[in-house]
Amino acid sequence: MSNKPFDVVGIGNAIVDVLVKTDDDVLDNHALTKGTMALVTEEQAERLYASVGPGMETSGGSAANTLAGVAQLGGRAGFIGRVRDDQLGAIFAHDIRAVGARFDTPAASSGPSTARCLILVTPDAQRTMCTYLGASVQLHPNDLDLEMVAQARMLYLEGYLWDSDDAKAAFIAAAEVARAHGGEVALSLSDAFCVERHRESFQELVDGHVDVLFANEMEITSLYKANSFEEAADQVRGRCKVVALTRSEEGSVILNGSGTHRIEPYKLGPLVDTTGAGDLYAAGFLVGYTQGQSIEACGRLGSLCAGQVVTQLGPRPQADLRQLRATHLG
Amino acid sequence: MSNKPFDVVGIGNAIVDVLVKTDDDVLDNHALTKGTMALVTEEQAERLYASVGPGMETSGGSAANTLAGVAQLGGRAGFIGRVRDDQLGAIFAHDIRAVGARFDTPAASSGPSTARCLILVTPDAQRTMCTYLGASVQLHPNDLDLEMVAQARMLYLEGYLWDSDDAKAAFIAAAEVARAHGGEVALSLSDAFCVERHRESFQELVDGHVDVLFANEMEITSLYKANSFEEAADQVRGRCKVVALTRSEEGSVILNGSGTHRIEPYKLGPLVDTTGAGDLYAAGFLVGYTQGQSIEACGRLGSLCAGQVVTQLGPRPQADLRQLRATHLG
Repeated sequence: MSNKPFDVVGIGNAIVDVLVKTDDDVLDNHALTKGTMALVTEEQAERLYASVGPGMETSGGSAANTLAGVAQLGGRAGFIGRVRDDQLGAIFAHDIRAVGARFDTPAASSGPSTARCLILVTPDAQRTMCTYLGASVQLHPNDLDLEMVAQARMLYLEGYLWDSDDAKAAFIAAAEVARAHGGEVALSLSDAFCVERHRESFQELVDGHVDVLFANEMEITSLYKANSFEEAADQVRGRCKVVALTRSEEGSVILNGSGTHRIEPYKLGPLVDTTGAGDLYAAGFLVGYTQGQSIEACGRLGSLCAGQVVTQLGPRPQADLRQLRATHLG
Repeated sequence: MSNKPFDVVGIGNAIVDVLVKTDDDVLDNHALTKGTMALVTEEQAERLYASVGPGMETSGGSAANTLAGVAQLGGRAGFIGRVRDDQLGAIFAHDIRAVGARFDTPAASSGPSTARCLILVTPDAQRTMCTYLGASVQLHPNDLDLEMVAQARMLYLEGYLWDSDDAKAAFIAAAEVARAHGGEVALSLSDAFCVERHRESFQELVDGHVDVLFANEMEITSLYKANSFEEAADQVRGRCKVVALTRSEEGSVILNGSGTHRIEPYKLGPLVDTTGAGDLYAAGFLVGYTQGQSIEACGRLGSLCAGQVVTQLGPRPQADLRQLRATHLG
């Protein structure tokens, strides 16, 4: 890759998370499927919030978590996403800048409030999410900082953007700019329900615009309507330069031109909350990748970062990731 | 105590905390004294926030934390304090209601925003606080729900309110109403600097209006300008019905008509963040007290709740306090 000012630039929904520890019956009462993300209206979000226990607020958003992780690892990171000029928007902007990522997208001065994601964390440490997209969907193609995109070695996109037509158009425009300037494009499929909503369009995207694909087991089997993980892996093999498939406690499997690489998971402490596991896997992986490391080393760094974030509440690592990397991967 | 609908009603600043893990040199750079609370203007708060790392937001406020703890223990709790009708105000209101406390004070619809407290947590788990009081100081005597105060077995007041003249007047009016209706009055001295700012007025209050006094070592020695903890304890002995003095890892000392009672601390796990330790001690103590338990049992429940909250980030217990009580004090 050519010399560029940014290692990774991400486009995603700019979201503040509200983390609430809860029991399984709350999921049943609200007909929520454990481990997935459901979109809700502002009214639904308010009603749901009123029915649950006290929360902890933290900046979130899938790609934003990844870019924060890239910055925490010392990578040169930029993020593009839309908040409103409200208190939660100020929190989001502070937190991503505070770890050293560049975030210049102007806050919307009218329209819906900053996006919020109510994350219900059950005793098994699984997270179930209800997202009110608010201001984050107001990301029109002409709001995109294409100069920053052109300056990125890697452009990282989250599948969740597919739920907004404007953001989707912005996303494809950005992918074209990145590649035209010698950069690569990475995509995370984000969520199995999201894949279901946009299956064909994701398949076209993977075939036409993506160099590095991230997906978990549910997402990749949903993408190809496969009957097993192995069948899905066979379907996707060769469609992108690199495919990194995460399998929770079974670690990850990476497919590239040189074959299939199995990466062990890291167990760094008791499992507290799986929020952000996939996002931090991508962060570690992309830092290794943009530093020209071997595919196994990329996978191990992804695995390590995911292993850290699941030992804490919330998707933004409270540990020093650089030190963690030095300790475990010296 | 007569039969009343509320066990404890608290009046305090309604604050949202921003918890930031940081190094000691940040305290030096901003001339902050570890373990204390400094008042800052909105502009100072913004500048400080911009200079620190990513945060976690959670409802806070000293008396509010205590009342949330009372409710979590199954006590009938009410809280009186002022937020603005903004996003942080909505978070504060949700969180205190979500644990079962009554909170009816109407949000201000104009004026400063909801109070925020930037809490810097250093590697030794100590917390250093910078508070922008915002809307919380707009608590005029006529905003007080004196009916709720009259219905409380115990009225709990935080010393921090002394930093606002309006709140101070509201506070004394409430203490008189509580006692006139057969309730008792508890006060937490809150902070050594706060005691220094209002020493004489606190001394008069302790002598004239308070049945149960909570203070830590720094606060009680500051109140009487004493040279040692023992000297301060001798000074305060007999001025209120009960004096509970907390001494961090040395546990607490309770002075009442029957003498001096030493309570051991609970060590429930690694020390993570001392934010809320005093608030939760008061919560446990007051639940025991309003349930008519022995003074040692009150102290032990306070000690247990404080011991839990220091094992987590933030001042609102994420554990089930009732279960904890059953396990340790069953």
